[in-house]
Amino acid sequence: MPHIKLSEELHGIVSLFAFRPDTAKPMRALAEVLLRGPNTLTSGERELIATYVSSRNDCYFCQTSHGAAAAHHLGGNEQLIVDVKQNFEVAPITPKLKALLAIAGKVQAGGKNVLPADVERARQEGATDREIHDTVLIAAAFCMYNRYVDGLATWAPHDADAYRQMGAMMADVGYIKEDAPPARAQSATK
Amino acid sequence: MPHIKLSEELHGIVSLFAFRPDTAKPMRALAEVLLRGPNTLTSGERELIATYVSSRNDCYFCQTSHGAAAAHHLGGNEQLIVDVKQNFEVAPITPKLKALLAIAGKVQAGGKNVLPADVERARQEGATDREIHDTVLIAAAFCMYNRYVDGLATWAPHDADAYRQMGAMMADVGYIKEDAPPARAQSATK
Repeated sequence: MPHIKLSEELHGIVSLFAFRPDTAKPMRALAEVLLRGPNTLTSGERELIATYVSSRNDCYFCQTSHGAAAAHHLGGNEQLIVDVKQNFEVAPITPKLKALLAIAGKVQAGGKNVLPADVERARQEGATDREIHDTVLIAAAFCMYNRYVDGLATWAPHDADAYRQMGAMMADVGYIKEDAPPARAQSATK
Repeated sequence: MPHIKLSEELHGIVSLFAFRPDTAKPMRALAEVLLRGPNTLTSGERELIATYVSSRNDCYFCQTSHGAAAAHHLGGNEQLIVDVKQNFEVAPITPKLKALLAIAGKVQAGGKNVLPADVERARQEGATDREIHDTVLIAAAFCMYNRYVDGLATWAPHDADAYRQMGAMMADVGYIKEDAPPARAQSATK
């Protein structure tokens, strides 16, 4: 049972976003730019980083929903999500993504754990400053989202199909709430 | 030395915000609403929660700058910041704030650590659902900001007066970058 009174029809972070729209807005915007904004890392790669960190934080709702979003981006390859969570070093992903996941894992345990050698490995595999930056920030941001979801004991569904639908929506439609009027249309009415 | 190429004139999270303005915008907006938006918790209390969590995450830049902001809100009481970081249970603060700091400390270690008894203690001391929510989210958010600052090894000044000035600016001016054109003015030029 959630620690505070939340809508019983909503789940996970969605129930918290409904509880406090003022904080939901920047949190949704951050997820959108980090996971779906223009980037040399694909959205599938970025969702994999988010999923891996959420898995290390043992957040069921986040690792399952973002895992489903990653799988959707990656042509429905659900086995890859399992493989990355289990041991990304032997998963069928690029050496660059392995190096970035290693950095993300360090960030999950604490920022100071990231050593010059971790960054050097990523650079050797072709990672840019921007990709290293985004990996650290995705990992840091999911340390927030995961704690928010579990720290208030939100309810999570346990039906795999519900997450497949959620993941497809997250991947295709994104993280910005649809019913928010776009800024330009809003100011035009003033 | 920072892990990526950052402006040498800037420090801490400010150097990261300059590196990637697209992610800075929602991160600044989140800090603003959480720490300075309308709330039944004072900004001083909220900055104390941010400082305490940053201290537990061993983030020098965040605990010192937000500690200075908290002290500024609290009439320059720098000793209180030291006392709260050392042992908030015996610090001269309200029983409600002690209960909220206990929740924040649990969140810092991981969301699932927050137990019904922790929430019940806060309620007994008069905390509302919204105050409990905001405490969890401030703690979770600083687990992000702290990891971002340290995960990229940003440079931090070590001059107490620099932090006093920074804290006063954070408290009085806030977290939204001043040179960003307001939304309405921007759309009027289109």
